[in-house]
Amino acid sequence: MIIIMEPSATQEQINTVMRALENKGFKTVLNHGDVMTVIAAIGDKRLIEPHSFQSYEGVRAVKIVQEPYKLASREGKQEDTVIEFSNGVKIGGKEKPVMIVGPCSVEQDIEGLLRVADAAKEMGCQFLRGGAFKPRTSPYDFQGLEEKALEYLAIAREKTGLLVVTELMDTLDLDLVCSYADVIQIGARNMQNFKLLKAVGKCNKPVILKRGPAATIREFLLAAEHIMYNGNDNVILCERGIKGVDNTATRNTLDIAAIPVIKKYSHLPLIVDPSHGTGRRYLIEPMAKAGLIVGANGVMLEVHHDPENASSDGAQSLNIPMFKKVMKDLNKLIGRIDYDNKHSDNNDFCCINV
Amino acid sequence: MIIIMEPSATQEQINTVMRALENKGFKTVLNHGDVMTVIAAIGDKRLIEPHSFQSYEGVRAVKIVQEPYKLASREGKQEDTVIEFSNGVKIGGKEKPVMIVGPCSVEQDIEGLLRVADAAKEMGCQFLRGGAFKPRTSPYDFQGLEEKALEYLAIAREKTGLLVVTELMDTLDLDLVCSYADVIQIGARNMQNFKLLKAVGKCNKPVILKRGPAATIREFLLAAEHIMYNGNDNVILCERGIKGVDNTATRNTLDIAAIPVIKKYSHLPLIVDPSHGTGRRYLIEPMAKAGLIVGANGVMLEVHHDPENASSDGAQSLNIPMFKKVMKDLNKLIGRIDYDNKHSDNNDFCCINV
Amino acid sequence: MIIIMEPSATQEQINTVMRALENKGFKTVLNHGDVMTVIAAIGDKRLIEPHSFQSYEGVRAVKIVQEPYKLASREGKQEDTVIEFSNGVKIGGKEKPVMIVGPCSVEQDIEGLLRVADAAKEMGCQFLRGGAFKPRTSPYDFQGLEEKALEYLAIAREKTGLLVVTELMDTLDLDLVCSYADVIQIGARNMQNFKLLKAVGKCNKPVILKRGPAATIREFLLAAEHIMYNGNDNVILCERGIKGVDNTATRNTLDIAAIPVIKKYSHLPLIVDPSHGTGRRYLIEPMAKAGLIVGANGVMLEVHHDPENASSDGAQSLNIPMFKKVMKDLNKLIGRIDYDNKHSDNNDFCCINV
Amino acid sequence: MIIIMEPSATQEQINTVMRALENKGFKTVLNHGDVMTVIAAIGDKRLIEPHSFQSYEGVRAVKIVQEPYKLASREGKQEDTVIEFSNGVKIGGKEKPVMIVGPCSVEQDIEGLLRVADAAKEMGCQFLRGGAFKPRTSPYDFQGLEEKALEYLAIAREKTGLLVVTELMDTLDLDLVCSYADVIQIGARNMQNFKLLKAVGKCNKPVILKRGPAATIREFLLAAEHIMYNGNDNVILCERGIKGVDNTATRNTLDIAAIPVIKKYSHLPLIVDPSHGTGRRYLIEPMAKAGLIVGANGVMLEVHHDPENASSDGAQSLNIPMFKKVMKDLNKLIGRIDYDNKHSDNNDFCCINV
Repeated sequence: MIIIMEPSATQEQINTVMRALENKGFKTVLNHGDVMTVIAAIGDKRLIEPHSFQSYEGVRAVKIVQEPYKLASREGKQEDTVIEFSNGVKIGGKEKPVMIVGPCSVEQDIEGLLRVADAAKEMGCQFLRGGAFKPRTSPYDFQGLEEKALEYLAIAREKTGLLVVTELMDTLDLDLVCSYADVIQIGARNMQNFKLLKAVGKCNKPVILKRGPAATIREFLLAAEHIMYNGNDNVILCERGIKGVDNTATRNTLDIAAIPVIKKYSHLPLIVDPSHGTGRRYLIEPMAKAGLIVGANGVMLEVHHDPENASSDGAQSLNIPMFKKVMKDLNKLIGRIDYDNKHSDNNDFCCINV
Repeated sequence: MIIIMEPSATQEQINTVMRALENKGFKTVLNHGDVMTVIAAIGDKRLIEPHSFQSYEGVRAVKIVQEPYKLASREGKQEDTVIEFSNGVKIGGKEKPVMIVGPCSVEQDIEGLLRVADAAKEMGCQFLRGGAFKPRTSPYDFQGLEEKALEYLAIAREKTGLLVVTELMDTLDLDLVCSYADVIQIGARNMQNFKLLKAVGKCNKPVILKRGPAATIREFLLAAEHIMYNGNDNVILCERGIKGVDNTATRNTLDIAAIPVIKKYSHLPLIVDPSHGTGRRYLIEPMAKAGLIVGANGVMLEVHHDPENASSDGAQSLNIPMFKKVMKDLNKLIGRIDYDNKHSDNNDFCCINV
Repeated sequence: MIIIMEPSATQEQINTVMRALENKGFKTVLNHGDVMTVIAAIGDKRLIEPHSFQSYEGVRAVKIVQEPYKLASREGKQEDTVIEFSNGVKIGGKEKPVMIVGPCSVEQDIEGLLRVADAAKEMGCQFLRGGAFKPRTSPYDFQGLEEKALEYLAIAREKTGLLVVTELMDTLDLDLVCSYADVIQIGARNMQNFKLLKAVGKCNKPVILKRGPAATIREFLLAAEHIMYNGNDNVILCERGIKGVDNTATRNTLDIAAIPVIKKYSHLPLIVDPSHGTGRRYLIEPMAKAGLIVGANGVMLEVHHDPENASSDGAQSLNIPMFKKVMKDLNKLIGRIDYDNKHSDNNDFCCINV
Repeated sequence: MIIIMEPSATQEQINTVMRALENKGFKTVLNHGDVMTVIAAIGDKRLIEPHSFQSYEGVRAVKIVQEPYKLASREGKQEDTVIEFSNGVKIGGKEKPVMIVGPCSVEQDIEGLLRVADAAKEMGCQFLRGGAFKPRTSPYDFQGLEEKALEYLAIAREKTGLLVVTELMDTLDLDLVCSYADVIQIGARNMQNFKLLKAVGKCNKPVILKRGPAATIREFLLAAEHIMYNGNDNVILCERGIKGVDNTATRNTLDIAAIPVIKKYSHLPLIVDPSHGTGRRYLIEPMAKAGLIVGANGVMLEVHHDPENASSDGAQSLNIPMFKKVMKDLNKLIGRIDYDNKHSDNNDFCCINV
């Protein structure tokens, strides 16, 4: 249940409603939007007569949120969530799409990482990504440099000013990863590692949550809900491909339609990962463009200074010259995006124009 | 096996090579390209030493085509296939993307159809689509008006000059459908109806072949090969969505990456159908744009004068005012497409710029 | 809507109800069961007040059949359908499961076919299968011997008394195939070739309908409904595997649970095809047993006199000695099946005991 | 690479080979089988000439294991792994299949749990299962009683002698769960939570590893490899259903063929979970039988004293009277299984007879 307060509602009126809900056994979550304030009441709605709350002072409307995700739902919070970083970078809403680039894994050769970071900076990217702890299908594959990788990423941040994104795989490493990262990534295979979702819900860093390879959109948004329910509103969703009918032409099926679908049902920022989403270098540029033109708030892509000798995912990584060529075209497209002409007044259309 | 002839090769040299192949038990197919002439030799390559053909006069190169599809393969024919209609409309290669629009089924109310056709004409579309024979999951659903629908489509063509696209479901109806249609559509559920593929292979109309809902790209191109092998080179492929992990948010998963993948492996024109591909009206515009920006040669979309009362697929059809709004934006995007700046010189990139 | 008549209802009472329904614009279908007579009324149920039919003489109950398939549904016809052939062989219900065996394609070497047929006869099988028209993914693969194959099958029938099962791929071949076959097979890739379903609905031979590789059970039963709706009640369903998440270990995922699911929702006989369902010879015996123990009314399996040199599907065919070994064990299991102890009185259980 | 030692090889000969491998940079793992001793050497095989090891004393054969899983592979260890518990219960190989039963979640009402445990004991089951930490798609669903649940399970073990199986969700809870459980379960959604696999690899309790809902068999066996590589050989695999084309008739598609496939490629014990695998109560008995007849070493099923009011998974739980009825029939089938007549001498058949 969602209780929408009048713009003029006082804090005391809000508190009164919340206390009444809590007395009925509901957990309450307060969202202060620019336009209105909304109280999400979570609990067994059979215990109350929802519309009895209609008569409280300051209440504009009482709505039953149909979706099982409450906090992630656009029904409960109409305005797009925009996350702002300390250096002024913003992601979400009508902000310019961001670029998150870097190698799949951080490797011994820090010079290689720094060359990638320099190129990213040069091309106007905002984030540097790199794995310190690697989820690998086989135990015989490279498992990541762990803390040393985090140190290298910090050095690259120091040098370039790029923000650092890195994956957390275990609750045990939470403090360590938080001490280095600007954004914590939860990988696709951990999308339903609920203990990990709970842990990052309690930390104060934004989280990139990747969609599981066989997850429905409902399951994806409920995974985000686990993080938000535990207190962290700064969730960035990432579409990175699902298992499809053809796993020879591409590694995964990048579900481009999921982007406007999620934009319709949720206010959270949403990015696209064409590197994992296709597993093929030649598809990165077209699929990044496809994601941007349907409304993605950012693109994550894998760049390596020497893909042929990468410890992981070389076949889907761009080398530095290719990356610059791709970025030139992506920047051109980003420059053309005209958010103000999107049909935002019309629920039936959620389109980006160029 | 593919034998590439010198541009200067004479017809006699070509004939000599073909006869030699046929004597070895191969079936041969001749492709005259703008740049070069290629002979595809189909048969058991263990019976010959391919490179023995290298020494024939007029032969530039002998290549083993790895893909099981020979005629549809870009290895055998490098230049994009461009199909030209009697009214000058062209589809494929660097031609401006075409628009194929109309109702799912042609219905009793011919006025409705004519209103859609007029709007399509007004917005610069080239083709009118409409089902006469409808493949329906349930026998209790509307099955189509059959020949009367074909007559209505012909009337609309007369009035607007639009070319007519309609689906063939049975070899028995081939002559009837050919006598009305400019392009014959083979539906997704018939993608592996091999008798039907053979039949349209023997007719002289271009064919739109829709990808089956669980077909791999290899199976899709082999279905095209069935048509081409039987003599019809004018095959237009259509990506229309596959079964994915989530069938509640969308009806199918539109496989946008299949577009650049197919462009890499085949020279055939390729269009995208965001109406069936998503089953949701609000996703048509963004997904049409996604298809165009990765290189689709056209878009097929469902438009109905009164979707709420359509006999089929109302939920995914645009009404006429929505259609005009969508077309305005699509035309803007189409106008920006800059094919000459695509990285066509580089196999690792096949990108469209805007 | 289903109208269940009293066992004592007269023909005139039945006719009265049917005329009343037809006057309301419904199509009616009459099912005479052993226990009761049921009228299926197909049409727009908003046009009538269903329970007004309750008061007609001879009517015991009026039920809204929820499933979109009416004639195939167990709601409308409680008793299992049992199909009896002229030689006394029966399939369905509590009849002993039948065995349908033979090569994927009939080949030039008729002696090989006769050796398989003899072995099938010797091991107690009832049906000989073999393809005359072959649906092949590639046009360069063996396409079948066509009429000559039908003649060979007829010779084998003459010699062994086995009934002949063969696939129909095109409405144009219907009369030809009907003149030779005892049972017509519709292949998985034609499950939604609605024109073909309609055609076999109008012929008087039993039909084996294979489940499409990505078909839901609802789509499968609606495909059967197309055949029944056109007048042919003798439909035998065949589970033959669906596209799953792993296509390297097995060719398809044989959906064993579909067997008890379909038994719950439909009265039609149902067989299992472990050869296509797995694509691996070593899985045929265990998966045939799995199918039988959950209630399949028969097993279809591929046997070839020389699998290493088969024109198609050699890797999933048994040779004759293996086939005899497998049949010995299957016959042992079939002999143990105790249908009378199945919990048929309880909707929550539909189990076979051994 | 796998090095198979002569049965007569001395410990010193074994040590010599292992040291030589380690000097070449390989990790070595020693398997003492009943019949032979095998050394698995993991590392970059390009660094050595494998067959140079052939000449070491005591070496019978050197084999390149093709599969990426080494320790889980039957190539490296031919004999079935049999796990024996302190109370004499055994699982794997030709041992009688075991039954693992209990509620999805342990709930407040300990009396209910004890009633289920008593019924399990009475029907001859060996293990009691129950969730203490519950992975739930929504944060608003019941999350488990945590340590109190573990205490309840220990009380039930005390009373009945059943062994306790419970799920571990987080490395942080490892010591706690190990102090109560006899077998640790890793849930399907954590199949690729590699940190958790590593953690249970270092503990001394047997582990039930459930197949992820979209995992290939290769990915599944590699997940087992992660556990074994970290030192724990006692892995029990569990097939529990994959995402299929139809999620309305059943919750998942139980991949029965995966059982004989895994038996062919791995020596590990393997059980089947028809409760999660179908999500439908009426399918539990037939699918348990299907699993047993293709060679499962055990069955896991959900039983609740009051399924209508269960905190989770009520729709797929048996109540106690149904459970007894099902067990009566399963025990009858288990009693008939004749392992000694399986065609174990023939790689092409791996069949169970009844």
